Amino acid sequence: MTSPEFANGETRGKIITCKAAVAYGPGEPFVIEQIHVHPPQNMEVRIKILYSSICHTDVSGWKGENEAQRAFPRIFGHEASGVVESVGKGVSEIKEGDIVVPIFNGECGECCYCKCEKSNMCERFGVNPMRKVMESDGRSRFSTIHGKPIFHFMNTSTFTEYTVVDSACVVNLHHVQTLNIKKLTLLSCGVPTGVGAAWNIANVHSGSSVAVFGLGAVGLAVAEGARASGASKIIGVDINPDKFIKAQALGVTDFINPREAEKPVYERIREMTNGGVDFSFECAGLSDVLRDAFLSTHEGWGLTVVLGIHTSPRLLPIHPMELFDGRRIVGSVFGGFKGRSQLPHFATKCGRGVVKLDDFITHELPFEEVNKAFDLLISGKSLRCLLHF
Amino acid sequence: MTSPEFANGETRGKIITCKAAVAYGPGEPFVIEQIHVHPPQNMEVRIKILYSSICHTDVSGWKGENEAQRAFPRIFGHEASGVVESVGKGVSEIKEGDIVVPIFNGECGECCYCKCEKSNMCERFGVNPMRKVMESDGRSRFSTIHGKPIFHFMNTSTFTEYTVVDSACVVNLHHVQTLNIKKLTLLSCGVPTGVGAAWNIANVHSGSSVAVFGLGAVGLAVAEGARASGASKIIGVDINPDKFIKAQALGVTDFINPREAEKPVYERIREMTNGGVDFSFECAGLSDVLRDAFLSTHEGWGLTVVLGIHTSPRLLPIHPMELFDGRRIVGSVFGGFKGRSQLPHFATKCGRGVVKLDDFITHELPFEEVNKAFDLLISGKSLRCLLHF
Repeated sequence: MTSPEFANGETRGKIITCKAAVAYGPGEPFVIEQIHVHPPQNMEVRIKILYSSICHTDVSGWKGENEAQRAFPRIFGHEASGVVESVGKGVSEIKEGDIVVPIFNGECGECCYCKCEKSNMCERFGVNPMRKVMESDGRSRFSTIHGKPIFHFMNTSTFTEYTVVDSACVVNLHHVQTLNIKKLTLLSCGVPTGVGAAWNIANVHSGSSVAVFGLGAVGLAVAEGARASGASKIIGVDINPDKFIKAQALGVTDFINPREAEKPVYERIREMTNGGVDFSFECAGLSDVLRDAFLSTHEGWGLTVVLGIHTSPRLLPIHPMELFDGRRIVGSVFGGFKGRSQLPHFATKCGRGVVKLDDFITHELPFEEVNKAFDLLISGKSLRCLLHF
Repeated sequence: MTSPEFANGETRGKIITCKAAVAYGPGEPFVIEQIHVHPPQNMEVRIKILYSSICHTDVSGWKGENEAQRAFPRIFGHEASGVVESVGKGVSEIKEGDIVVPIFNGECGECCYCKCEKSNMCERFGVNPMRKVMESDGRSRFSTIHGKPIFHFMNTSTFTEYTVVDSACVVNLHHVQTLNIKKLTLLSCGVPTGVGAAWNIANVHSGSSVAVFGLGAVGLAVAEGARASGASKIIGVDINPDKFIKAQALGVTDFINPREAEKPVYERIREMTNGGVDFSFECAGLSDVLRDAFLSTHEGWGLTVVLGIHTSPRLLPIHPMELFDGRRIVGSVFGGFKGRSQLPHFATKCGRGVVKLDDFITHELPFEEVNKAFDLLISGKSLRCLLHF
């Protein structure tokens, strides 16, 4: 066992004792405590986390909103950046000292999805909210100092000074000189999820009109992606008017607060856009909002992209015959990006300023204040609060 | 007033008295009687119908399944071929004597949909099941010999020796020398609806796998379109095993009768296709079938195309989160064809044998036996029964 400090080669192959934020039950405050992080096995990577931020998926998992997915004690967190401490056998594309981001939606490179241009799913390392251990051996790499296993989350688990992830879930961004490590953190989840939905899933084009429902970090990343693609009208919809100021800086041109609207939001949007937007993005995870988003697009060619996590059992609020009006609806996970193969190029683009990352980090706190950071996100005050390790 | 015979120029500008099959109430047998057909007005065309066939949309409208869309007395029928008797003012692309087919999904050429590559809708002459009169002046061109108006249906109304339709709803196929007029009838609705769903909406490609739910004329046209595109596996699903013989001739390679299946149809299809078909087509108009069709496609890239008319108020039987599995669903009207601009080329292709039309006409009857022809369709005995005028 060694100190939690990153030291070239010194900790390789050994258990690391370090600090982590452990959740012991649904919605219970995180406990900052010493844990053991076991060495990476074949094709795995141990990462020293430098920064982690928080996303609504962490909140949902921590609250245990889906009972079947509950697993405690657990280390949450999936949006982070760090440096490789050591690698397991067989890992060739990543080496100790590389700057990396973990990705919850892995890319094994071998399965039918990874080999298919149309999909960014992965048979082995795709999003699987039921998984709580490593894919290779069904065991955890985390334990309490008394030896009790602590579960993983979303292929990543980043609320810890060290984590172990499969190499399929690590993107090497060591080459990206133009972005500091803090900003790289944003490329781990929220920003590519939103920008990619606009670029890869919707193909927002110059002059098109867009409506974004829900102006959290993902919704604003959609807006920023649409702005970067030359969209001429970007309508932001949110019940929190505080979000509008930040949204304006990110290219949102018009705002609707549903609580202040005198008519259904979709009617208002149709009036503003001569019949409806070309693209709408649902980033709220609410059924009624989804219907508004669907009906706000133009008949004949409108496309609604669903990004929100829908925890209600309610079915799609659309009648089959409504599909005959030519409106389409699709889901988007991680913005359609294949993480390992496409994210490095995306990072380079961000480094060139194609996508502006500056406005997404609204707060910074020491890692120990993770509970406060959760409050900031849940209360709608932060977009991304960066935890420093 | 003139005789019902087609005579060059003799009937031009006059009311024609001719035979029609008039429906006086929901599900009531058609009455063959003399009616008056008024001259075409500006941009309208009067057609002498030579052949008409029957489609399930006629059955649905005749039964009055959607109460709001009921309108009687009415002349149904929308799949036909004929010869132009006369044209109204302003009609330039069609002249007396031209061989034409009416289309229920018109193309004005001027609206935002007609000008958009992505859509085959039409603001003025698209599918509008509520419309029962001419678009231009809100009046009918049909009346009883006592002067009482008889309503139009689906922009067309073809169960009559003469009909009047807007020129936006007429496709000039006079150039097609390689298809006889009987076969041209099929290009008015069912065949392009099915083939186009495979070609224009799904883009079925060589080597792909396909499942077709419901093996009526439209479903079989989907199969034929998939065959013509080089699909390697075409699975037909129907509860009527009599359909399988015909289907085999049209390229269907495998059959599933849900009533004989020991497991859900989608599971059976996934087993047969290493995880699911690339494309599924729902041609039955039933919610449970739609869910089977959706789940029978491969995660990551599967596409379900909805062609069936869903009269139940049930919403799409899909949960929003299921969209995250990468399956997509879209609707298809008239196979995505823009009728006036794209159907002539399609007809030429059919004439060259790219699509085989021979097997679709299973029965032929004199027009007066329209009630018998309806029975044949409803009982699943016919694909298309051609009525001779």
